[in-house]
Amino acid sequence: MRRVYLDYNATAPLLPEALEAASPYYMSVWGNASSIHRQGREARMAVDEARMQVARLIGAPNALDIVFTSGGTEAVNLAIRGYAHGSRSRGRHIITTRVEHPAVLDTCRALERCGFELTYLPVDDLGRVDPEALTRSMRPQTILLTVIHGNHEVGTLQPLAELVEVAHAHRVPVHVDAVQAVGRVPIDVLASGVDLLSLAGHKFGGPKGVGALYIRDGLGTTMQAILHGGHQERERRAGTEDVPNIVALGRACAWMSQRLADEGKRLTRLRDHLEAGVLSRISAVRPLGKGGERLPNTVNLSFAGVKGEALVFNLDLLGIAVSTGASCSSRQGVPSQVLEAMGVSQEESEGSVRFSLGWGTTDEDIERVLDVLPSTVERLRRLSPLS
Amino acid sequence: MRRVYLDYNATAPLLPEALEAASPYYMSVWGNASSIHRQGREARMAVDEARMQVARLIGAPNALDIVFTSGGTEAVNLAIRGYAHGSRSRGRHIITTRVEHPAVLDTCRALERCGFELTYLPVDDLGRVDPEALTRSMRPQTILLTVIHGNHEVGTLQPLAELVEVAHAHRVPVHVDAVQAVGRVPIDVLASGVDLLSLAGHKFGGPKGVGALYIRDGLGTTMQAILHGGHQERERRAGTEDVPNIVALGRACAWMSQRLADEGKRLTRLRDHLEAGVLSRISAVRPLGKGGERLPNTVNLSFAGVKGEALVFNLDLLGIAVSTGASCSSRQGVPSQVLEAMGVSQEESEGSVRFSLGWGTTDEDIERVLDVLPSTVERLRRLSPLS
Repeated sequence: MRRVYLDYNATAPLLPEALEAASPYYMSVWGNASSIHRQGREARMAVDEARMQVARLIGAPNALDIVFTSGGTEAVNLAIRGYAHGSRSRGRHIITTRVEHPAVLDTCRALERCGFELTYLPVDDLGRVDPEALTRSMRPQTILLTVIHGNHEVGTLQPLAELVEVAHAHRVPVHVDAVQAVGRVPIDVLASGVDLLSLAGHKFGGPKGVGALYIRDGLGTTMQAILHGGHQERERRAGTEDVPNIVALGRACAWMSQRLADEGKRLTRLRDHLEAGVLSRISAVRPLGKGGERLPNTVNLSFAGVKGEALVFNLDLLGIAVSTGASCSSRQGVPSQVLEAMGVSQEESEGSVRFSLGWGTTDEDIERVLDVLPSTVERLRRLSPLS
Repeated sequence: MRRVYLDYNATAPLLPEALEAASPYYMSVWGNASSIHRQGREARMAVDEARMQVARLIGAPNALDIVFTSGGTEAVNLAIRGYAHGSRSRGRHIITTRVEHPAVLDTCRALERCGFELTYLPVDDLGRVDPEALTRSMRPQTILLTVIHGNHEVGTLQPLAELVEVAHAHRVPVHVDAVQAVGRVPIDVLASGVDLLSLAGHKFGGPKGVGALYIRDGLGTTMQAILHGGHQERERRAGTEDVPNIVALGRACAWMSQRLADEGKRLTRLRDHLEAGVLSRISAVRPLGKGGERLPNTVNLSFAGVKGEALVFNLDLLGIAVSTGASCSSRQGVPSQVLEAMGVSQEESEGSVRFSLGWGTTDEDIERVLDVLPSTVERLRRLSPLS
């Protein structure tokens, strides 16, 4: 039986178009993009083309504003640490939120150990930051706001325009962790005014192992590299360019640039159908993060009287892949800090499961989940010591 | 006409076996290796298998001693900065050499800006460090020796056993930048006693965008991560694992484990034939770094009265890809610091060209170079204002 994969927020299968675009660069056009001979120049052209494709998807005015990295984590690290260390003479206060991805939170904690002061803004029950709370947290020493765009666990979208407005009114630049948002909702860095934006390929059909950081023109001079070595990426990121992965990322961005509106509608329809179907067929289910703006592909449901992990395992045996929260924490068994910040009780948090959809998700996938989920939940509830 | 590629020290074409091994992991087994469902576990198994293959090629006693990175540059950065920052309470003096790759040199310069003291050891005319000079440079505050194994520009192999012996006699651990040596000469981290060893896949037939750092068991607790985020790689390197690239790297290591001795002999024969052929057919050519132990695949020749860059361009037009020194510096036009450290005159340095061979190099490739190089050099010499 075809397996059903609803864990796109962990990672997505590579788009066939992306793999096809990359394939010449493994064994035919294999040059080092820094080499001056023909193989090198061909590789360089491919990297430059991909840079334009990434820029186009996020509305960056210039391809040179894009720095390729090894993924979302490195992009986030470069954005926050690179900017913080480059700006420490101007102040050491950074503002973030309590619902960030570990890549942001751990980077912030590392900065705290280096003498930076961090403010972690609270969120409401949908996971949103209050722009007025941001205003109150501003200090003369504040050098950066770093905020997640679309939440990885519940899909909540932050009121980005208002947050950027507040930050800029205080002359504080904004880094947006858009790893879960790029390729899922329209993003326009120029219109929204964000100064730094991180993305990863593998959440929306590009390859793992490659990401990108948008750096607003003019901000770059205050950035410090976090990987030292060769002169690649205009001194912003050393290391031989991963040409096939970069080409595949570019192609995935181009693919998504053309289909974003349609895909957004399609995924919203599938997601809403899944959510409504579960709520109508299973009692005592609470959708977490529902009620405001959110990613079209994500739904997080808390099943009373069920351990989310047990549900994940049982669905896996039935050929359905879903997740409890962030996969990079899923082997650690720590409770979700995102849900805690949203005021979700520990019991509800432990009963929560994330369903995340993507380009390969079909109507049949959703029907299959709706077919097997009620009996699975019922069985687990019967087995539960709480019942 | 088939192009001749003799720039393997810049990058190598991917081995067909490596691409074949990776191919299921793009679109069939695409899971996030941290996910607990089946797709995740399958990805995890593939990563673990690759980890064993890498360990085997370099004689690491335990697969868990291997940390996957985004390439050689990140491995080197993690080794040096990760160890230095983790050990700064014990001292801030680090010893390296004047013939390191920019990934090491730039990382060392970044540490100097953070309050570390660096000693850059001189080399002899073949590019070798004198173990007695290392002894004299040792201080009570010395925390690390970082030394290149096989030089990227001239192929010189350092007297590693003696250097490790001196360092360990002073209780100083040793990081070896083996990016150009792994897959070309036998390496046994256990027998040689090195504490940290960096490698990159794409120099010997693995993919770009992936590398690895060997961390001797017991040393790891003093390492600090340089990319913060998820719990991947046992907290040593955050970021979603690039499963296809990791699998391809593992396969390339396995391929090379079986063929290293034969490939070493084959490349030595081809390299010696190239070198002897050039020296017998063209006058006023000086081989740089010849006379001691060196990588089997590298020859660096200085052609009197010729600009190396002009020779690279002209050979490129004839379908032959070679390089002047390190490709990651080749667009900057800076003179080679490696050759300068070896006491090579600026004129000789400017006339030098690196030929580097690899798994795809054939006898016909060498014959083609020997066919066209004499007339090309002669023509450039006639055009030279020096002639």
